[in-house]
Amino acid sequence: MSSITFIGAGNMARTIGTRAVAGGNTVEIMARDQSKAEALADALGGGTTTGKWGAVPAGDIVITAMLYAGVVSTIAEYGDALAGKIIVDISNPFNATFDGLAHSEASTSIAQEVAKVAPASASVFKAFNTIFRNVLAEGRPDVFFAGDDAQAKADVATFIESLGLRPMDVGGLKMAHWLEGAGVLTVGLAGNGVGHGNFALGVTEVTG
Amino acid sequence: MSSITFIGAGNMARTIGTRAVAGGNTVEIMARDQSKAEALADALGGGTTTGKWGAVPAGDIVITAMLYAGVVSTIAEYGDALAGKIIVDISNPFNATFDGLAHSEASTSIAQEVAKVAPASASVFKAFNTIFRNVLAEGRPDVFFAGDDAQAKADVATFIESLGLRPMDVGGLKMAHWLEGAGVLTVGLAGNGVGHGNFALGVTEVTG
Repeated sequence: MSSITFIGAGNMARTIGTRAVAGGNTVEIMARDQSKAEALADALGGGTTTGKWGAVPAGDIVITAMLYAGVVSTIAEYGDALAGKIIVDISNPFNATFDGLAHSEASTSIAQEVAKVAPASASVFKAFNTIFRNVLAEGRPDVFFAGDDAQAKADVATFIESLGLRPMDVGGLKMAHWLEGAGVLTVGLAGNGVGHGNFALGVTEVTG
Repeated sequence: MSSITFIGAGNMARTIGTRAVAGGNTVEIMARDQSKAEALADALGGGTTTGKWGAVPAGDIVITAMLYAGVVSTIAEYGDALAGKIIVDISNPFNATFDGLAHSEASTSIAQEVAKVAPASASVFKAFNTIFRNVLAEGRPDVFFAGDDAQAKADVATFIESLGLRPMDVGGLKMAHWLEGAGVLTVGLAGNGVGHGNFALGVTEVTG
């Protein structure tokens, strides 16, 4: 099992956290508002603890469960407190019309920007961003993930499997750009009536 | 049923063409090398015809079944011969290392470049590019497609359904950029051992 810290105490921390506790992982919640962290820890149960904002997380895997605009600055604020950690960015930097990305550069992503400000000993991943929250709560969606470090990849895959979900390795961290694009595609599909929002992109095996 | 013209007589024209004939569509093949067009038409059977390179296609739906580097110039060369046609670009403009796109601009795609040189009365789509050829031949992959014109969209969806496949509308033509990115993700998944290449990205419904 894995030890997980969520930075953020909102809906995504609650949803992934619920699965994480059910999967036997050790969970910690950090939030700027300590009372929100405590409320979510209580709600999750299973021995979930809270940590002080900006302190060294208890978890080996740190999930930034927050809106995209705050992710990079939060990682920078934590600074050396994240040395040696696996950092998982789950955000979707949608533009105002939800049909493209908020950052205009062709080959970057929030996850890649996180890697620029995180300690060199940290390993940064993109994951979970292609999945609507309700689907993550109720379904068994595939979890696409991207990152550069092989050992950390194995750890992330183990964590995803503990949630009862299939890890789908799309490659190195530069693929985070295209995972963010897959988030745009997912919103596009929903907007065009696919699956009434109760679907996720996944891998379909072909048997001939 | 639909009337389809393939510009190109290679593997993708053969694979989609086989399904198109089986689905009762009228099929025409155009190739620079007329003998190749005739050989493929003979192989496909079902009354498949050939047309002269650069002439007005017989099909209402024109599929550019060629490597990405030739698509835009071919559409420009056809010029007004494509007036009123539905043009479907299926190409993957991969970079040399197959982990990104060959064009560096953030918000374009081969399909969007096609739209810039095609007659104003044509309607341009991106489709099929997320599917490996062997999967298209042997499986039942979902077909993601993007385009701007609602009536033409219905026609493209009807054609995809005639192939026995599910059309998945991701939105307007600007989404072609992200479909090309989904092609990159698909190659990334294959390179990381997913499904031994016998898979496709698809839509997974969640039932709770």
